[in-house]
Amino acid sequence: MNPFPDSERDALVATAHALADAAREATLAHFRADGLAADNKETSRFDPVTVADRASEERMRAILAERRPDDAILGEEFGPKPGTSGLTWVLDPIDGTRSYLSGTPTWGVLIALSDPTGPVFGLIDQPYIGERFAGGFGISEVTGPMGMRPLRARPARPLSEAILFTTFPEVGTEAEGAAFRRLSARTRLTRYGIDCYAYALVAAGQIDLVVEAGLQAYDVQAPIAVIEAAGGIVTDWEGRPAHQGGRVLAAANPEIHRAAMEVLNG
Amino acid sequence: MNPFPDSERDALVATAHALADAAREATLAHFRADGLAADNKETSRFDPVTVADRASEERMRAILAERRPDDAILGEEFGPKPGTSGLTWVLDPIDGTRSYLSGTPTWGVLIALSDPTGPVFGLIDQPYIGERFAGGFGISEVTGPMGMRPLRARPARPLSEAILFTTFPEVGTEAEGAAFRRLSARTRLTRYGIDCYAYALVAAGQIDLVVEAGLQAYDVQAPIAVIEAAGGIVTDWEGRPAHQGGRVLAAANPEIHRAAMEVLNG
Repeated sequence: MNPFPDSERDALVATAHALADAAREATLAHFRADGLAADNKETSRFDPVTVADRASEERMRAILAERRPDDAILGEEFGPKPGTSGLTWVLDPIDGTRSYLSGTPTWGVLIALSDPTGPVFGLIDQPYIGERFAGGFGISEVTGPMGMRPLRARPARPLSEAILFTTFPEVGTEAEGAAFRRLSARTRLTRYGIDCYAYALVAAGQIDLVVEAGLQAYDVQAPIAVIEAAGGIVTDWEGRPAHQGGRVLAAANPEIHRAAMEVLNG
Repeated sequence: MNPFPDSERDALVATAHALADAAREATLAHFRADGLAADNKETSRFDPVTVADRASEERMRAILAERRPDDAILGEEFGPKPGTSGLTWVLDPIDGTRSYLSGTPTWGVLIALSDPTGPVFGLIDQPYIGERFAGGFGISEVTGPMGMRPLRARPARPLSEAILFTTFPEVGTEAEGAAFRRLSARTRLTRYGIDCYAYALVAAGQIDLVVEAGLQAYDVQAPIAVIEAAGGIVTDWEGRPAHQGGRVLAAANPEIHRAAMEVLNG
């Protein structure tokens, strides 16, 4: 079964890029502006939702309403919209709202296209840098300041030589944090705080591992598509599919994925 | 006394930009390349020095040898070169080598010009983004993806509304780390891991505080010039000049500087 003839693949890829272009404009319109409004979605943790976040998703939904009315949508800001095509657009209009609010250039727009088996195409876009990582349908490339380059996750190396990223030093629950610290102690270098950009760095062959907990589907589906197209592997901490979110282990290759999983569950 | 007539200021500013242009080329030549070589300067901490780091400083020193032979140089990689003019170029060819090695776009090239009182002009350059923050000699501006914009540190707000950055979650010594965590607990948001870029964000009015320990002169002099030109304030944790490095507190305004210092020393 091939549900995607070439012409449909091209149309889907073009639609994904149109979404990313629209989101880029919507997010940059407010990036580093003075007096950015922010609400707290939860009172217990700082999780700002900006005007830009909503505008970005609205722009993308408007494009999908016109070009792909039969597809479902799962977006961070406005929830699920059912569809009839079997395809779902999974949208995070600003992944890393804390980065966005701080002016840091490592937030991103995440766009994934999923069929019932999981993500089949994804984009990780960093609007300020003008950098877009794409993966799926035979595509694995980044376009940005250095032009267009193929993406290829790095080959296997020992954990002791690996670079590990996560967003928050306090990863997940207490037990999850302890597992993370066990892994961190075995790696060469651990870095924090760059949100979805870390997944792009796995695909770009720059780092070996990203470990996070408590993710949503829209946080992880585009990274899965981009990393897997580049030869990497993304699962939950037990090696199961991660596209519904939760605890995520992204790895540059199967060897380091296995090594990291052993330590996380050790 | 005005040691810098306009014509000399212009020449010094032009030289600083020439250094940054050369460093940008030298660093980007190796950024995200495969198999980047890295030595460990210290065995106890991961502190890679790459081919790019050395090439970047060599390129800058060659320009200074030609254009400013009487000025002193203090560079991270090749140490001090004495001068006779009373001016010193303080160079960090890649601040954030761990970020550089990881492919993250938040390392930078730091260039400061100092007289005996401290830095009088500085540049923070992020080559991959193509973004340059400048401060001193009446200049306070960033050029980058959004064109040229003035820099202005943000006005006073309570600590409880402040955004705090540092590079490593484990800040300095145990006592320094405890002081940092006291401050972090009082702020709205703490973020990690973006090296010199955090100082640029203070100047750009995006964040309120950067707190670090164990810095060198070349880590901090360009940030001091850029932040002070934007209306911010940079001292050590006791409010004394910080341009020799050590424990650094960068603040968007005097009010939050004072509030942060009280907590750090509380």
